[in-house]
Amino acid sequence: MVSVNNADGASPQASLRQVRYELLTLGDELLLGLTANGHLTFIGAQLGRRGALLQRNVTLTDEADAIAEQFRESWRRSDVVITTGGLGPTCDDRTRDVIAEVLGQKLVFDATIRQAIEERFSRLGRKMTDNNLKQAYVFERGEVLANANGTAPGLWVEQDGRVLVMLPGPPNELQPMFTEQVVPRLAARGLLLEREAYVQLRTAGIGESALETKLQPIFDRVGPGLSVAFCAHQGAVDCRVSSPSGALSHAQLEAVAAECAQLLGDDFVCYGHDSLARVCAELLREQEKRLAVVETATGGLLAHAFTEVCGACKFFAGGVVCCSNDAKMQLLDVPEDILLQHGAVSDEAAVAMAAGASETLAADYALAVTGFAGAASAGANSGNPVGTMFVALYSPAGVWSKKLSYPGPRSTVKVRAVNAALDWLRRELRRAQRGDAVTSRRIGTMQ
Amino acid sequence: MVSVNNADGASPQASLRQVRYELLTLGDELLLGLTANGHLTFIGAQLGRRGALLQRNVTLTDEADAIAEQFRESWRRSDVVITTGGLGPTCDDRTRDVIAEVLGQKLVFDATIRQAIEERFSRLGRKMTDNNLKQAYVFERGEVLANANGTAPGLWVEQDGRVLVMLPGPPNELQPMFTEQVVPRLAARGLLLEREAYVQLRTAGIGESALETKLQPIFDRVGPGLSVAFCAHQGAVDCRVSSPSGALSHAQLEAVAAECAQLLGDDFVCYGHDSLARVCAELLREQEKRLAVVETATGGLLAHAFTEVCGACKFFAGGVVCCSNDAKMQLLDVPEDILLQHGAVSDEAAVAMAAGASETLAADYALAVTGFAGAASAGANSGNPVGTMFVALYSPAGVWSKKLSYPGPRSTVKVRAVNAALDWLRRELRRAQRGDAVTSRRIGTMQ
Repeated sequence: MVSVNNADGASPQASLRQVRYELLTLGDELLLGLTANGHLTFIGAQLGRRGALLQRNVTLTDEADAIAEQFRESWRRSDVVITTGGLGPTCDDRTRDVIAEVLGQKLVFDATIRQAIEERFSRLGRKMTDNNLKQAYVFERGEVLANANGTAPGLWVEQDGRVLVMLPGPPNELQPMFTEQVVPRLAARGLLLEREAYVQLRTAGIGESALETKLQPIFDRVGPGLSVAFCAHQGAVDCRVSSPSGALSHAQLEAVAAECAQLLGDDFVCYGHDSLARVCAELLREQEKRLAVVETATGGLLAHAFTEVCGACKFFAGGVVCCSNDAKMQLLDVPEDILLQHGAVSDEAAVAMAAGASETLAADYALAVTGFAGAASAGANSGNPVGTMFVALYSPAGVWSKKLSYPGPRSTVKVRAVNAALDWLRRELRRAQRGDAVTSRRIGTMQ
Repeated sequence: MVSVNNADGASPQASLRQVRYELLTLGDELLLGLTANGHLTFIGAQLGRRGALLQRNVTLTDEADAIAEQFRESWRRSDVVITTGGLGPTCDDRTRDVIAEVLGQKLVFDATIRQAIEERFSRLGRKMTDNNLKQAYVFERGEVLANANGTAPGLWVEQDGRVLVMLPGPPNELQPMFTEQVVPRLAARGLLLEREAYVQLRTAGIGESALETKLQPIFDRVGPGLSVAFCAHQGAVDCRVSSPSGALSHAQLEAVAAECAQLLGDDFVCYGHDSLARVCAELLREQEKRLAVVETATGGLLAHAFTEVCGACKFFAGGVVCCSNDAKMQLLDVPEDILLQHGAVSDEAAVAMAAGASETLAADYALAVTGFAGAASAGANSGNPVGTMFVALYSPAGVWSKKLSYPGPRSTVKVRAVNAALDWLRRELRRAQRGDAVTSRRIGTMQ
């Protein structure tokens, strides 16, 4: 087994790059496109945060021969193999048996698991059928990972200098099992870092190349021990600084990140992985302010971004989703003449919607989004083609609107408009927090 | 190459099961969990609809040796290999070169593609950089799949009795290229069916085993030529009838499906893949009725389900997302004493919210959802634990509410509550369309 706790002086992270991880995701429902492969996204991200790059993910059918062949191959070339799915009680779930055979291990009945399964059924007031007992069979030389949210336990095997981790398929069972039981075990064996491998700066409102150009002088000064990676996603760009050679300590990486954050000013959102909505929520809570939103083309996505944040009721006054002029007038007292004169997709309408939402819902801040998101948008024209979005921000300091334009499909236009609205609110809340003067205050387009 | 246009009398679908498809999805961003693998979901579903089961999906890094090794292996054991990503202009994008080498083909410069790329840049008013010309290199023995939405064309190669399809990574480029160019080519060569392989009945409000039990007598009577598959997803169950042996014609399958639909009554939603929201939208349009929604715990998801439907403005009067009592009173005139006396999560509150939404937004129908969706729901208690949702339906015929309870994580509870609300509206619209009498009409809990 590759170990990073070696004595040759190499850095933990450098050695970790040599640890070969493969993920086998089992299930016809993935191959038939009935379910998205969220396990890849989750496990890949978790490993990446701790310094390991997943080498390969293979999704395959529940067919025994295919599983055996693929597992044999993955086991041969990997240090750690993780499987998901195929541990359940139905006859499709044969992964355990197939893999035990490849490893030359027997499966043995575990009475403790039987008891846990029986207790779970009795707690839920349901009758346990016999096929559930299949889940009580475990590797003769292996460990059991308890499942707090379901019947099938996870399995941990160390053999041939390698690690095998078998996880149940349901995400609400797999995810806590992975972070609470698997990550610490892998870290204890030197197969993952004990802490995050990089310091991540989340930015918004600045493009990837502009960001790189701006930060390059800092990176140049720190020198070749530093590694930098950028990742752009729909209006936000993450910058990760790390030191694969181990030349820089975590404290030194944090100092580099802090210098970058300072230079970026309001383009810097946060360290780590918080969403723009969560950062806004935190600022609203600190300032004890409340927010309202109103949206047409984004159809509920903006409201949903905020309601996904834990404890949203504390700061979220409410949201309105409307497309008709009637709804805008009825719910938000948007004056009809504004809609008739300027159209519902205009700076003026966006401003009136934001102001109306703030007023009606007694909110300190309000965001409005209106526009033409997709190919079938009635009303789009050469002046305001598809992809045109107006975003308005109402705040105690004033109300503004801006016109934005995004290429791409409807879903992209919607997400980018939501992110632009969130980012604008975040900047205004930061400004208010600092007590800086407002530099522009007017109703109308602000580019 | 496996062909289904054979003369031995086997049915097309039976032979298709022998066609081995593999999908290689390239990109570190997938393995790092930065992007979900939507290509698997999309391509797997498209192949499944035309009778082919994707055998395997391998996601791997952009590293040349790994790509070469994996492609060689997949090519050896497959009839069709599809790759996604790695065709772009950056130096990471080396897939084309690696695969050309494995196939022993030269890459040749295609002046037509160069021209298309140049024209695209000039149309967007941007300057073309030289690295874009890399995308103009194609296989010497192969075909080009034009890209209407981007610069990198797709590539089609037939060699060694196999087919290779290389597709660009962005979904809005890949998806139309696949449905418009790849599917017809594969079908023409007998590697996919010319039409859908099955007839799908979408149902709601009935569990998978109850559905199976109800339909079994029909299946038994039709006999062994019929194959039936069920797929459950959060409140809806799809039933697919097919005839892999070819014993039943498509018309016969349609007749079986029609008999099932008739027996299922209002549990039958539609044939095919339409969403519950789309089915509701169609019924609303036919009856020239308008809908309003109001939601707390689902936080915008219900509104978003409707606004995703094309032309939603025609039937969607508007939506309100709120958690505070104030918002309910301000926007929807929900009487304060109802909220104080019964609580905001109650039958009475749900009914008042639905009635208020219908009134305020001048809508014929209204849906309200309120409840405790997730672990952090303040106010959840033993009478109404986390997972409790109240759904109310306002219609011209009356207003009802029902209490629902879902296990599982927050995201599941939200989706199931949205689906329950949509399904209820659908049933009421069907009833109104038929002109049937209302069998229960009261304000209060209806289980």
